[in-house]
Amino acid sequence: MDVISLRKPKVVILGAGYGGIMTAVNLQKKLGVNEAEVTLVNNNDYHYQTTWLHENAAGTLHHDRSRIQITDIIDRNKINFVQDTVVKIVPEEQKVTLQNGEVTYDYLVFGLGYESETFGIKGLKEHAFSIANINAARQIKEHIEYQFAKYSNMKEKKDELLTIIVGGAGFTGIELVGELANRVPELCQEFDVDREKVRVVCVEAAPMILPGFDEELVEYARNYLERKGIEFRIGTAIKECTEEGIIVAKDDQVEEIKAATVIWAAGVRGNAIVEESGFEAMRGRVKVDPYLRAPGHDNVFIVGDSSLMINEEINRPYPPTAQIAMQQGVTCANNLAVLIRDQGNLEEFKPDLKGTVCSLGHDDAIGTVYGKKIVGWKAAVMKKVIDNRALFLIGGPSLVLKKGKWNFI
Amino acid sequence: MDVISLRKPKVVILGAGYGGIMTAVNLQKKLGVNEAEVTLVNNNDYHYQTTWLHENAAGTLHHDRSRIQITDIIDRNKINFVQDTVVKIVPEEQKVTLQNGEVTYDYLVFGLGYESETFGIKGLKEHAFSIANINAARQIKEHIEYQFAKYSNMKEKKDELLTIIVGGAGFTGIELVGELANRVPELCQEFDVDREKVRVVCVEAAPMILPGFDEELVEYARNYLERKGIEFRIGTAIKECTEEGIIVAKDDQVEEIKAATVIWAAGVRGNAIVEESGFEAMRGRVKVDPYLRAPGHDNVFIVGDSSLMINEEINRPYPPTAQIAMQQGVTCANNLAVLIRDQGNLEEFKPDLKGTVCSLGHDDAIGTVYGKKIVGWKAAVMKKVIDNRALFLIGGPSLVLKKGKWNFI
Repeated sequence: MDVISLRKPKVVILGAGYGGIMTAVNLQKKLGVNEAEVTLVNNNDYHYQTTWLHENAAGTLHHDRSRIQITDIIDRNKINFVQDTVVKIVPEEQKVTLQNGEVTYDYLVFGLGYESETFGIKGLKEHAFSIANINAARQIKEHIEYQFAKYSNMKEKKDELLTIIVGGAGFTGIELVGELANRVPELCQEFDVDREKVRVVCVEAAPMILPGFDEELVEYARNYLERKGIEFRIGTAIKECTEEGIIVAKDDQVEEIKAATVIWAAGVRGNAIVEESGFEAMRGRVKVDPYLRAPGHDNVFIVGDSSLMINEEINRPYPPTAQIAMQQGVTCANNLAVLIRDQGNLEEFKPDLKGTVCSLGHDDAIGTVYGKKIVGWKAAVMKKVIDNRALFLIGGPSLVLKKGKWNFI
Repeated sequence: MDVISLRKPKVVILGAGYGGIMTAVNLQKKLGVNEAEVTLVNNNDYHYQTTWLHENAAGTLHHDRSRIQITDIIDRNKINFVQDTVVKIVPEEQKVTLQNGEVTYDYLVFGLGYESETFGIKGLKEHAFSIANINAARQIKEHIEYQFAKYSNMKEKKDELLTIIVGGAGFTGIELVGELANRVPELCQEFDVDREKVRVVCVEAAPMILPGFDEELVEYARNYLERKGIEFRIGTAIKECTEEGIIVAKDDQVEEIKAATVIWAAGVRGNAIVEESGFEAMRGRVKVDPYLRAPGHDNVFIVGDSSLMINEEINRPYPPTAQIAMQQGVTCANNLAVLIRDQGNLEEFKPDLKGTVCSLGHDDAIGTVYGKKIVGWKAAVMKKVIDNRALFLIGGPSLVLKKGKWNFI
């Protein structure tokens, strides 16, 4: 036995999002207590279900349902948890600077999640909300409720307090308006407001909602949401966001829509820290090798929204989804075990796309599962099955019982 | 039988507060269907328990618990209900101008409630909340929650978002800080905020809290609330309220206290409409005759916060309380019946002061009941008994069951 092997290899996992937490829970299953020194770093003491945040923001699901205490799911005999914020990675020195300290690594897993991408649209950063995390989602919920309360207590009513703009009719935008469609009648009841006064307007620059989805499903979604009172402005670009609302343009027509609430749900990019730390990246996304490693850095894995992989079939990147991030976590844990033990072969990552379901509120959805199109309550049930399955993969059956979705009506 | 008696006398009751609603429910018990044409006018379709509003504002009681649908308690065979806002009374023409119409009367009961009195303090009207009604209380609750949500989602924390100023340490001010003392830990839990960061500051110009209360009880209240984290600034006047907080002065020391929430709970006055309609009044309060009538207007009764009566024993006005307003409603209904039937004698109003209990949250209180001092859980229970009794008087046992307070711990 040589000197070096006396020292346990140090694994540092940055971020407890889908990619990071799946790496951690899979690694702790694979490794014995003494095989490696594993540290998980996260700015909160909880993991959250990013794909549920739109429900927290709309107010249809309590934020505590979307978050999971990290110490409830990691085995602290095998993984150290450090609650701190990552400032920068210094790959040459194999260390990570944190706000309150630093950690060194032999192997690094970068799992810090997405950031909102505003494409330079004026005023969006200052005046629009984005569903970035639990705190942001909670603020959106409270902001909307506050506007309703203010309106009810106002002598000269300003109807724009009751207007909610959702920027973007992609997956997140549509799931959000789906929740809002259910939430608005509740808000009207709670705050004694006439439903007719409330507007939820979804603005999308592209010529259709849910680009990439099957046309028939898109048609279903749009009809369903319009019946529930959602207004769509398609082919309409947001030019500016102000304190008063937004300015949109369609063809050559410019229009102001006054609104007290603007939620930007259109763009995400990878995490800026990858670029700031010198990794080659495009909008915060690093094109990883088949084993999920950053080019030129054999000891740095990148999982989740900051990793970029090309879907060869269509020659376009895979979208940043929870499904892929979680699968990457499994592969990443396998590959770490191979490297730590210095035995076996690295595994190539192959996404296993089971399908996509886009909810339209808790009681309806559209989607494609194993190539089959589904709509309506069946799709809504399927969505909950998917949500519960994610919980199962992260924390086993007890987590599903604790945080799962069982309102199958 | 002469011609005049063919026409049923018209009674109009303005306001469904404690005084107005008690007049209505007692009158409907006394009168047969054909004896008079009684109309109750109110701006909302509900009565609310004004003495519970501080709980709605703090967020410790849902606002729906404090309000009662008027049609649930009046007998519509005997009383017409008109939902409208009173603009003005024209006593010479025996008519009342409403926002959307007018009503004429033979007998009028004026029961429109208090208004906030800001004593000319600069900026209070613009920047401070007052617990004026259900809508205002609900806005305060939502405002506070929104500040907490904003704080949690802020990078550079502004602690003043978590500061709540209560102006006034009279009955309402103390009951409000009592609720807030219980509510703040819940808010901290809900919004992931450190309790140490939250301040609730009660500012009072007088040299003591709860002026008029027994000294020993005052001492108890202050100690209790301070132990629960309430700060008192006694003998301290609010000089100005700004967007940023308040400016206070004690002796010659001027100080700014930054706060995102300022609630003015110090002054009430009668309703401005009595003055605007030409009744002789002082700060909206009319010194009524022993039968509760406005001087010079034998067909106009004034009940509740706009009526002024002198307590001869101490040669000071009785305070505007729910207890007195409700008792006035009973006397007023009796006197109306005498006038309508033109038989019997008018009854003099004599307040029957059973005592006062000031809550310090739902689980503690101080008070004097039938001359006996009580504190602690016994007083808290007594407070609930009083609250439930008020419901009983307004709507009988079914209302007590529906809206009563049963959390006797």
